[in-house]
Amino acid sequence: MADKNPEIAGNEVSKKGLKKAQKAAEKAAKKAQHKAADIASGKVVPDQLNNEPIEDVSQGRYGVNELICSRERKPVTHVSISTLSPAMEGQTVLIRARLHTVRATGKQCFFTLRGRDHSVQCLLAVGPNTSKQMIKFVAGINKESIIDVTGQVVKASVVSCTVQDVEVHPSHVMVVSLAEPRLPLQIDDAMRPETDADDVARVLQDTRLDNRVLDLRTATSQSIFRVEAAICRLFRDILSGRGFMEIMCPKLISAASEGGANVFALSYFERKAFLAQSPQLYKQMAIAGDFEKVFTIGPVFRAENSNTHRHLTEFVGLDMEMAFIHHYHEVMMLIGSMFIEMFRGLERDLSRDIEIVGKQFPAQPFRFLEPPLVLQFREGIALLREAGIEIEDDEDLSTPNEKLLGQLVRAKYNTDFFIMDKFPLAIRPFYTMPDPSNAKWSNSYDMFMRGEEILSGAQRIHDPTMLTERAKHHGIDLDTIQGYIDSFRYGCPPHAGGGIGLERVTMLYLGLDNIRKVSMFPRDPKRLTP
Amino acid sequence: MADKNPEIAGNEVSKKGLKKAQKAAEKAAKKAQHKAADIASGKVVPDQLNNEPIEDVSQGRYGVNELICSRERKPVTHVSISTLSPAMEGQTVLIRARLHTVRATGKQCFFTLRGRDHSVQCLLAVGPNTSKQMIKFVAGINKESIIDVTGQVVKASVVSCTVQDVEVHPSHVMVVSLAEPRLPLQIDDAMRPETDADDVARVLQDTRLDNRVLDLRTATSQSIFRVEAAICRLFRDILSGRGFMEIMCPKLISAASEGGANVFALSYFERKAFLAQSPQLYKQMAIAGDFEKVFTIGPVFRAENSNTHRHLTEFVGLDMEMAFIHHYHEVMMLIGSMFIEMFRGLERDLSRDIEIVGKQFPAQPFRFLEPPLVLQFREGIALLREAGIEIEDDEDLSTPNEKLLGQLVRAKYNTDFFIMDKFPLAIRPFYTMPDPSNAKWSNSYDMFMRGEEILSGAQRIHDPTMLTERAKHHGIDLDTIQGYIDSFRYGCPPHAGGGIGLERVTMLYLGLDNIRKVSMFPRDPKRLTP
Repeated sequence: MADKNPEIAGNEVSKKGLKKAQKAAEKAAKKAQHKAADIASGKVVPDQLNNEPIEDVSQGRYGVNELICSRERKPVTHVSISTLSPAMEGQTVLIRARLHTVRATGKQCFFTLRGRDHSVQCLLAVGPNTSKQMIKFVAGINKESIIDVTGQVVKASVVSCTVQDVEVHPSHVMVVSLAEPRLPLQIDDAMRPETDADDVARVLQDTRLDNRVLDLRTATSQSIFRVEAAICRLFRDILSGRGFMEIMCPKLISAASEGGANVFALSYFERKAFLAQSPQLYKQMAIAGDFEKVFTIGPVFRAENSNTHRHLTEFVGLDMEMAFIHHYHEVMMLIGSMFIEMFRGLERDLSRDIEIVGKQFPAQPFRFLEPPLVLQFREGIALLREAGIEIEDDEDLSTPNEKLLGQLVRAKYNTDFFIMDKFPLAIRPFYTMPDPSNAKWSNSYDMFMRGEEILSGAQRIHDPTMLTERAKHHGIDLDTIQGYIDSFRYGCPPHAGGGIGLERVTMLYLGLDNIRKVSMFPRDPKRLTP
Repeated sequence: MADKNPEIAGNEVSKKGLKKAQKAAEKAAKKAQHKAADIASGKVVPDQLNNEPIEDVSQGRYGVNELICSRERKPVTHVSISTLSPAMEGQTVLIRARLHTVRATGKQCFFTLRGRDHSVQCLLAVGPNTSKQMIKFVAGINKESIIDVTGQVVKASVVSCTVQDVEVHPSHVMVVSLAEPRLPLQIDDAMRPETDADDVARVLQDTRLDNRVLDLRTATSQSIFRVEAAICRLFRDILSGRGFMEIMCPKLISAASEGGANVFALSYFERKAFLAQSPQLYKQMAIAGDFEKVFTIGPVFRAENSNTHRHLTEFVGLDMEMAFIHHYHEVMMLIGSMFIEMFRGLERDLSRDIEIVGKQFPAQPFRFLEPPLVLQFREGIALLREAGIEIEDDEDLSTPNEKLLGQLVRAKYNTDFFIMDKFPLAIRPFYTMPDPSNAKWSNSYDMFMRGEEILSGAQRIHDPTMLTERAKHHGIDLDTIQGYIDSFRYGCPPHAGGGIGLERVTMLYLGLDNIRKVSMFPRDPKRLTP
């Protein structure tokens, strides 16, 4: 359906326009082909190099391919760099990858092919089939260009590539997609370990994000987003295995259910609409609609002018809600064990990626206990007081206090993950169920990774009378939440749930320092592009 | 994180407010408890019934439980209705479910318990432990209330329930969550087969959607959304199995990359932002960023004032993009076989749900061929002309023509799913790769289910020069798409992809007539609630 997007498609095409469109397209295609042919035939060379008009034993073995516009179907015989091994010695392979670096030394040319987080060295030397011109051509290809290399696998010892026991001796090198000569950032600079000396070139965060397409190509970025995708997959698989069903919740909501200062407003036909700050209402309605255990993954919007390392205006929420029988701990402990299973799954499936990220951004391995540690809120406060912090019994945790508590817990219990239960009622939303034995507290919990909150959850009030009273107490205009309250009028099981910030989990699991590193295209008050 | 939503949470609570909050919460909890105790003790009965002040052998065996606010943790011993079987004869079971119907006949009371799409009959008869009062109480419980029933499993023959070989003879009936006496719609009416006589009560679509919490409780709704969740799961699992990685694409975009009439605009701090009409740019950037094969699932927004059976202003896009080697058919055929595998998966895993939906909304079973049928666009046009339709060679298909083509293809090839390849270039977006041998056509395709488009896709232009020329030709302001074009300046593999509308696939697979049936909380120009 994306293709029918009328905006990108531009305006309607008239009958006359058709003919014109066709001609223009043919012209553009021909131009691209000619350019390619010119370069391949030696009339033009990429960048500043010129071929000499002498006999060339490598004629036809190098050059720039025609733009791939699907002229013919051919079997795909290309191999991936990661599959190369000494067992393939002597075999001829065809590889499509990026030219990562290239270095010519007279009659030889070394170059590195990079495919995602794998790399292999190629050695091209003047010989019966390899001309000086060919070496000159290859040495002149712009870095980051995509090339097709045909060559023989030869045993070797290479330290600078991920493939360390073989190299490739090319017979053919064809350019598939040419990069511009000047790159806004160097991939090598972008993937340099943070532990390297201070005087080496580094890439600033904004430069990375402004040129995200290049920054995403580093092995570190490749691994970060593989970890993030795995967190989503594990969240879904673990919950599905426990009987949860995925639902889709709308992001466009009416003024009636939410509203206020931290919400993005838009004009919706003749009226106003808002962007959902959470799927809270909808996952609860799914429970009232008998789905029993649901999860939903989707964007969450916060019009908050927070320019911190951990706030985004749009992030991905992993939300869940579950009907329980007797006690909300049935839900809280399920979520806790879901996290433990997720951490185990990451260790099991993503160890190589975790290691790759750690090479650039060193971090302590993530520690956790099984079953997870559960602290009472008041125990957390006591730990902080022991450490000299002045804090009230029912005061919310500031970011520095959260961080400190994480350190204290790690020192005492040797875990980077813990649950804090029984938050003060007064600092939780109106729909939070009070503790039945002492309404100073509530049936609510947060979960923490490396001292930062990554989940907030609670038992929700499922009785419309009690919910109305609590909303009134909070000074909320009942008209704006009537639909929400009405959802509970026709019988609703007791239920609890929570919402997880995907990017925070990824950032904190990997021990990274900024949420923008784990959001592919981050959005904050100052950034709306690319 | 949902719980920290400051909007729902209301305004800040002062220190003084804490004490007040605590008192109010205690009061509300006590009130709920007293009400429950009053009903349980016979002082008050739900609805209009009154207990008589006589000895009651069932004292303590019926009543209304205290509101479940997690007072104590107890083992969960409840069983699900679906597990009941004759093998359990004589066993005592505890079930929590909704009171679906109840009918008292003097000394007996029959009632049906419903849990999602399962139901079982209960029979309560006056006896040594069952008083008339208890029967009166149960007969007076409002339909849709959630109740805990303890009872013995007894062999029986029941046609009106999904459990047909046993019934339950209750010893205890306790109300867990009381529904209001008057329901805005009756569940039985909402799940009546469309084939029933015309004079029975039906529920109008708007009534259903206005009271979605009730409408979702029908077996049909439960099954529809299980099918929809399965489509998402199959999409992800099949693509992951073929090396695709999940990515997250932003929904808030700057004016720079898209803009125009069919886009929702919002104010973003000091400037304007827009809601993404597709993840097109972002999935292509992921390809330019070397992720090779990506998919993304998320909301897609269209500010289109279309009030049809198949348009929503917010729907869920299943999008994919993939680098290929020689020819875009590598991608097109992968998508085609993904659909075939998805259809097989639905038949294999969801047959019971498909049958349940078919009982209420009868439809022909969905037919498909393996491998899928691929028609050229011009072959489709030829079929329409044979059927007497006047249509140009390169005219886009109108909705009626699409529908008719679906019927013609079904009659000729016996399939409800087919691919149409090689659309006219002029009716596709500017970034579509022209056919290299004839630029009247393009390397683009749509896929259809029961004669409606469910996917649109193409090879994209990955060369910035050609892309610029095509954009100019379409009269697009280059400034607004500069970031998009720049993504291709540093080498980009040839790639193709497509976008699927989740709700359309669900609707058409099940043969339903309106997309609002398969969107849990649909959004159209007239509906923004609940």
